[in-house]
Amino acid sequence: MKKVEDYIKSIPDFPEPGVLFRDVTSVLDDKEGFKLSVDELYNLIKDVDFDIIAGAESRGFLFGTPLAYLAGKAFIPVRKKGKLPRETVEATYELEYGTATIEIHKDAVKPGDRVVLIDDLIATGGTMEAAAKLIEELGGTVVKMIFLIELVDLKGREKLKKYDIESVVKYEGK
Amino acid sequence: MKKVEDYIKSIPDFPEPGVLFRDVTSVLDDKEGFKLSVDELYNLIKDVDFDIIAGAESRGFLFGTPLAYLAGKAFIPVRKKGKLPRETVEATYELEYGTATIEIHKDAVKPGDRVVLIDDLIATGGTMEAAAKLIEELGGTVVKMIFLIELVDLKGREKLKKYDIESVVKYEGK
Repeated sequence: MKKVEDYIKSIPDFPEPGVLFRDVTSVLDDKEGFKLSVDELYNLIKDVDFDIIAGAESRGFLFGTPLAYLAGKAFIPVRKKGKLPRETVEATYELEYGTATIEIHKDAVKPGDRVVLIDDLIATGGTMEAAAKLIEELGGTVVKMIFLIELVDLKGREKLKKYDIESVVKYEGK
Repeated sequence: MKKVEDYIKSIPDFPEPGVLFRDVTSVLDDKEGFKLSVDELYNLIKDVDFDIIAGAESRGFLFGTPLAYLAGKAFIPVRKKGKLPRETVEATYELEYGTATIEIHKDAVKPGDRVVLIDDLIATGGTMEAAAKLIEELGGTVVKMIFLIELVDLKGREKLKKYDIESVVKYEGK
């Protein structure tokens, strides 16, 4: 039987020379691969007590909304600055070159809400650390972070060590 | 019983003065609203014979992947230029000011594939017209276009009159 990793294509030198890009769109392209990926992610949260799934723009949307639907929960988009129409809270974090700013709607998380964070892939963990801060600023608790792919060597788990993290497929080394 | 339109917030003067923005994130924020929206969209395609759902970056992803999961189909992301890692086909279309270019992976649609296109909202229809061209260029057929929200006055249906279009919520006038 095929596993999720069998559907992931690896693209050399994208988006820049020297990077081996793990492509989740190749999972979505295949109806069995897509179903399997969503089901495996859902296994990671089916016994978790939570209220909301929050996913990062835009590949986090791809897996976050099917999971929210399956779990019967709300979905919060974590977006790049300037795209959300209502009042927001924002956080800025470091990238390899420069910074990025993300936002969530201020009324999307209420004090006491239990939130699962999702993204397609965890690398250094910068986006997820910033997203967690926004949820906590609004009084929510990040009860779990889940990823389809984890790039182990980039040590996102160290940066996010206070959170419960699980991933479906782990890549180590080159 | 609440309807989908009861969950949609309307934001004056976003993203610019004079525009009344219909906000789909307010639907996702609510677990009942989100489930109802996906179920109503699914009703529009449950009797359609198709192979793939294609959704436009990035709000089309929010509703497209739950539908693909429910229908047991593949999902193709229609993305802004430069974000997809494998070989693509691209189309450029007019915006109010300037142009935009979208892409899909060349291997994502095969000749004969029957494709449902989805976006959160249809306004003038420019993005969907360009997305349909890409699918047709690869030998696919657009069998239906579906939207959660339709801004009737902007006449997207006229531009897309050769396609089968359905929407869940229609807004006419201001």
